[in-house]
Amino acid sequence: MHFLQIPGPTNVPHRVLQAMARPTIDHRGPEFAELTLDLLPRLAAVVQTGGDVVVYPSSGTGAWEAALVNTLSPGDRVLAFETGHFAMLWCRMAAKLGLEVDLVPGDWRHGVDPGLVAEHLTDETAAVMVVHNETSTGVRSRVPEIRAALDRAGHPALLLVDTISSLGSLDYRHDEWGVDVTVGCSQKGLMLPPGLAFNAVGPKALDHQGRLPRAYWDWRPIIEANHSGYFPYTPPTNLLYGLAEALTMLEEEGLAQVFARHDRHAEATRRAVRGWGLEVLCADEREHSSALTAVMVPNGFDADEVRRIVLERFDMSLGTGLGKLAGRVFRIGHLGHFTDLMLVGTLGGVEMGLRAAGVPIKDGGVQRALAYLEGGA
Amino acid sequence: MHFLQIPGPTNVPHRVLQAMARPTIDHRGPEFAELTLDLLPRLAAVVQTGGDVVVYPSSGTGAWEAALVNTLSPGDRVLAFETGHFAMLWCRMAAKLGLEVDLVPGDWRHGVDPGLVAEHLTDETAAVMVVHNETSTGVRSRVPEIRAALDRAGHPALLLVDTISSLGSLDYRHDEWGVDVTVGCSQKGLMLPPGLAFNAVGPKALDHQGRLPRAYWDWRPIIEANHSGYFPYTPPTNLLYGLAEALTMLEEEGLAQVFARHDRHAEATRRAVRGWGLEVLCADEREHSSALTAVMVPNGFDADEVRRIVLERFDMSLGTGLGKLAGRVFRIGHLGHFTDLMLVGTLGGVEMGLRAAGVPIKDGGVQRALAYLEGGA
Amino acid sequence: MHFLQIPGPTNVPHRVLQAMARPTIDHRGPEFAELTLDLLPRLAAVVQTGGDVVVYPSSGTGAWEAALVNTLSPGDRVLAFETGHFAMLWCRMAAKLGLEVDLVPGDWRHGVDPGLVAEHLTDETAAVMVVHNETSTGVRSRVPEIRAALDRAGHPALLLVDTISSLGSLDYRHDEWGVDVTVGCSQKGLMLPPGLAFNAVGPKALDHQGRLPRAYWDWRPIIEANHSGYFPYTPPTNLLYGLAEALTMLEEEGLAQVFARHDRHAEATRRAVRGWGLEVLCADEREHSSALTAVMVPNGFDADEVRRIVLERFDMSLGTGLGKLAGRVFRIGHLGHFTDLMLVGTLGGVEMGLRAAGVPIKDGGVQRALAYLEGGA
Amino acid sequence: MHFLQIPGPTNVPHRVLQAMARPTIDHRGPEFAELTLDLLPRLAAVVQTGGDVVVYPSSGTGAWEAALVNTLSPGDRVLAFETGHFAMLWCRMAAKLGLEVDLVPGDWRHGVDPGLVAEHLTDETAAVMVVHNETSTGVRSRVPEIRAALDRAGHPALLLVDTISSLGSLDYRHDEWGVDVTVGCSQKGLMLPPGLAFNAVGPKALDHQGRLPRAYWDWRPIIEANHSGYFPYTPPTNLLYGLAEALTMLEEEGLAQVFARHDRHAEATRRAVRGWGLEVLCADEREHSSALTAVMVPNGFDADEVRRIVLERFDMSLGTGLGKLAGRVFRIGHLGHFTDLMLVGTLGGVEMGLRAAGVPIKDGGVQRALAYLEGGA
Repeated sequence: MHFLQIPGPTNVPHRVLQAMARPTIDHRGPEFAELTLDLLPRLAAVVQTGGDVVVYPSSGTGAWEAALVNTLSPGDRVLAFETGHFAMLWCRMAAKLGLEVDLVPGDWRHGVDPGLVAEHLTDETAAVMVVHNETSTGVRSRVPEIRAALDRAGHPALLLVDTISSLGSLDYRHDEWGVDVTVGCSQKGLMLPPGLAFNAVGPKALDHQGRLPRAYWDWRPIIEANHSGYFPYTPPTNLLYGLAEALTMLEEEGLAQVFARHDRHAEATRRAVRGWGLEVLCADEREHSSALTAVMVPNGFDADEVRRIVLERFDMSLGTGLGKLAGRVFRIGHLGHFTDLMLVGTLGGVEMGLRAAGVPIKDGGVQRALAYLEGGA
Repeated sequence: MHFLQIPGPTNVPHRVLQAMARPTIDHRGPEFAELTLDLLPRLAAVVQTGGDVVVYPSSGTGAWEAALVNTLSPGDRVLAFETGHFAMLWCRMAAKLGLEVDLVPGDWRHGVDPGLVAEHLTDETAAVMVVHNETSTGVRSRVPEIRAALDRAGHPALLLVDTISSLGSLDYRHDEWGVDVTVGCSQKGLMLPPGLAFNAVGPKALDHQGRLPRAYWDWRPIIEANHSGYFPYTPPTNLLYGLAEALTMLEEEGLAQVFARHDRHAEATRRAVRGWGLEVLCADEREHSSALTAVMVPNGFDADEVRRIVLERFDMSLGTGLGKLAGRVFRIGHLGHFTDLMLVGTLGGVEMGLRAAGVPIKDGGVQRALAYLEGGA
Repeated sequence: MHFLQIPGPTNVPHRVLQAMARPTIDHRGPEFAELTLDLLPRLAAVVQTGGDVVVYPSSGTGAWEAALVNTLSPGDRVLAFETGHFAMLWCRMAAKLGLEVDLVPGDWRHGVDPGLVAEHLTDETAAVMVVHNETSTGVRSRVPEIRAALDRAGHPALLLVDTISSLGSLDYRHDEWGVDVTVGCSQKGLMLPPGLAFNAVGPKALDHQGRLPRAYWDWRPIIEANHSGYFPYTPPTNLLYGLAEALTMLEEEGLAQVFARHDRHAEATRRAVRGWGLEVLCADEREHSSALTAVMVPNGFDADEVRRIVLERFDMSLGTGLGKLAGRVFRIGHLGHFTDLMLVGTLGGVEMGLRAAGVPIKDGGVQRALAYLEGGA
Repeated sequence: MHFLQIPGPTNVPHRVLQAMARPTIDHRGPEFAELTLDLLPRLAAVVQTGGDVVVYPSSGTGAWEAALVNTLSPGDRVLAFETGHFAMLWCRMAAKLGLEVDLVPGDWRHGVDPGLVAEHLTDETAAVMVVHNETSTGVRSRVPEIRAALDRAGHPALLLVDTISSLGSLDYRHDEWGVDVTVGCSQKGLMLPPGLAFNAVGPKALDHQGRLPRAYWDWRPIIEANHSGYFPYTPPTNLLYGLAEALTMLEEEGLAQVFARHDRHAEATRRAVRGWGLEVLCADEREHSSALTAVMVPNGFDADEVRRIVLERFDMSLGTGLGKLAGRVFRIGHLGHFTDLMLVGTLGGVEMGLRAAGVPIKDGGVQRALAYLEGGA
């Protein structure tokens, strides 16, 4: 059994794979409408919204684009924060689509500093783009404090939040936190293969129609067709089967338990990392991600060589260092369908791989994780 | 066993469903690169091109958008033909994206008249949009003759062709027919569930970068990343597994045999329809689709009532009449994974359903199909 | 899609195949006990007994052996009837196990004649062996009348009944009909692959311990272990998963509807056969099987050649003529997971195959079946 | 993901589960014959015999019975050794079938002592029954030395060997070791669900027809039908699909590598056990099983309570103590489809479970296993 411990795609549970292997049905028939009408409110519950969730046949990247083209107009200014590789890619997309990006620089070891939000807002700022959980760094930004900063400033900018690697793994509250558009996808906490992406859309965002051209990504025809259980274009039926099953699994465990499990696994992982005498990339205790941990390798060692050895000798995939972190970190994904014993195996593989790669580490990393996990849920 | 005889999604073969249920792998690992590098040329062989094929995680509708936004600029004029519901939807999309559409009206019973192409071209025509096989009508347009008309006119407009419901079922030759952009998808002749769409891109189209904003749909970063076997954003791994298996099935049967099989089944279907004393919607013998047959119900009868009865009593889904054909036709899909005996069952269900709905038909429709099919491949 | 129209194994529904692909669990753990305790009474309901049903990891042949070795002693006399190939095989097994078989000869076109039972009983007759539905001939024996004959004779012989190809397809009532041991298996009406076999055991049979040696087949340790949800040896977990799903399907449709469906399909098949001008093997109207139809080919034609052509040209498997019927009949299985349209496809394939093999048939066989099926459920 | 670490059934690989979910085919058709003729020699290669292997639809228990009833006659004497629970069950079966069993007592911590074989042979000894790998104790008997003892004694008794939990995991050589009948099954080293069992049959055994009654288990009709690729009764098609896939996996890894992997995992497990300060049940260094390890819990603790906690808190199934070992040992299965990281997770779960159950253990068991595994294959 391969250990797929990149921070997404994650290990797809057997029952989700099987659900996806059911025969495809008529997307205009009555059975399909039942599927949609059952599915959408259950998905909204994971985003913790009472509003609309739009499902796209696309990668998460598509839902980034959808969030922008549905709300903004050519030349609009957006405020963004350099929290890591994916925050930068989203900025690059915004620029390609004709938006002006005000980028607050960062060191890739911290989340968005809520204290800096107000000073970077301008009268023309149309939207603020925040990555909730940076998949490239394992750093979580504090969305409620960012919301509070906007509120204190009385600024009308839309708040757009990427939850690609947090949705279904970390507590995230679209409505309570006052987010306008949430961006999510299938292959992380939702335990599905890639191929589905989401926008949760608040009422303010829905009213705020921009003039960027859009057709495929247009929310409104989708939301309208969804009311009767259908889609304006052919929906990805078999991925939706998988989504229904994945939601059932989340419901069976309970969202609170799911979040607590991720917190526990992340804490155990950090204890192992520190036990090895290595450093976690995230530099602020308040911002640790419970979905993944980026581990810094000592100077003079190549993180990708560690990953290569771990893949070859122990059949485990770890996440590579992206962008300016290439070679300097590897990332351990501990999100989605994951258990204590899978984590123990994962950490064991990392410990053995580090040693095999000649990285000098201290004894007892896995042992510390075991000691913590023993405490139980 | 449900008979899914809409003209797509089609009956997904068991082995394709199973291929899709394999565990998801690291999309940045060596095994993934092997998958991509094996897959793309085999897909290109189905489109009959030696050039690039771009694969999107999206519905076919996304590939329509991709064809437009990669090549055209705001305000460009495109020439289109009212051959049916989907041709009209593609026009509507072009307009939403900011293009000027010159639409040649049609009666939904004929394909594009190649003789009319030249007279509707203008100096500003940037592209000609053609639907190869109209899924709403069962009419096939003669692409080579359209190409010849453009060549005779010496006009530089790009030729964009939708093969959504023909690719993998009807003979289609991207290179030989001089098509610039081909639009295709997974859930018809390629025997997959919905969720993948394609653009085959000729060299002229690749050079012809328009100024419409684009990010997700941008061909160039995808083509570049594909060279090493990867994608610029997370690809839909499990649908790609299914695609590899579906291509293997097409290769095992042989494309020529696949096309011949579809021709045989379409001819048998038309013989049954005429045997019942009913009329096929397609009005030109040269333009019959081998992928589906739209059947007109006599005045005073509701095609959707026939479909409802067939679904309830015989567990078969037929295609509904779309747009202005609503209630007047039903569509029999005979494309993708389909055999003689599945066709006999399908036609038997239609015959019984028509009788149960009180539509006056003559005896012997199925019998005529049997007599034709007996002749063999 | 292959048409598997032999009289078993039958077409296994997709959801049963998927149920069987679930991960195997600990056969001594609590989850396993729940599975067993849920399953056994539901299986008993199909056999229509309130008593014990013993499940073996074995072919149906194993359950034949179990019925004999649990109840009889070396040298015991059993009364059997030559109704076809499988009745003869069961007799041969009885002889191999050391029993004395009194065989009433037959012509393979009739079931057991209840009127002959009494005269063949002797004082030493320990058991009467009856095949409810002869899979080799498509003839059904009238078990209640055989029971009545035994009762009228006041004879204490055990009544052992083979329901291999009737269980789950034809009405069969273990308790009401006074059967002592019922023999069944998985791959026919129960819609599973081969690998499971059953004995339903009445109280008289349970008391009647014979002295034939037995270990694997011994009912008593199994029944005892089953009380707590376990088995005395490792049970075939994944086939049991499939059985649970198959029982759910039978329950969803309702046993009465399942039996009525089989009756309808059998009648439609016989109308087709007679429409072709051919003869059904079963010679008594009261004894037609609703699970399969054996069709006689005219002298001078080889039924296996028809089967070979049907397999090659139309990808359908039909049942061969067994024993002394080799080459003279082919058998159409219409049992298990089967629908009207699958039947229409099946009959279409037979009609085309007969013509292709040069067998002189009349027009309109399929047409007659359609006319009958139109009448509805 | 559940960790199924009982010593069988083992974790069935995903690709084997999927292979089993393929549609069932006609067991009398040409495709089936190809399957059989491909499968049997590949299975024989795992048993390391050039002779016949008979495949039964049954549990392993059935293959025990087959080995006896094919070769022995009522009242024959067999020599057996009390090496554990399963050796005792096999003896009990022999007695039930009417054989006289000479049992050499044992302490369940040692294998068969080859030095004792000669003195327990009598002139009437018809067969010697040996369990190669006792699944209840984790002790392996030295079959070649037992063979040598028989040879030295010049005794003609048949050598019957149970490889239920060793076949496909431990090196086992039917021909080279002079075994007459080998008994095996599907759900251990062969990585399948339960439901298939095997006899490898040497020429001496084939000649040695006993007079015990037999029908289902009779080798000869099966071997004869197998020559043309068929079976005398309906074979368990879908389990055979799984077997073909499992054999492919063994061939891909290579038998020598498979055995070496099991040896490594067993050694790592023992190091962990000793690291915890606990005792392995097997008392002779030459007899450690590489398929499973039975761990003794200190007096005053209940092994089943450890197992219960491990199941509840860490979702792992461990093997229970059987027979007179109940409550005193638990068994860790490390056979079949298993990797280094699965082992690390397994040992981590055991360590945490022991602590949670209050069993006093020393630190560092898992750590020792890691240190050993780091050394690599």
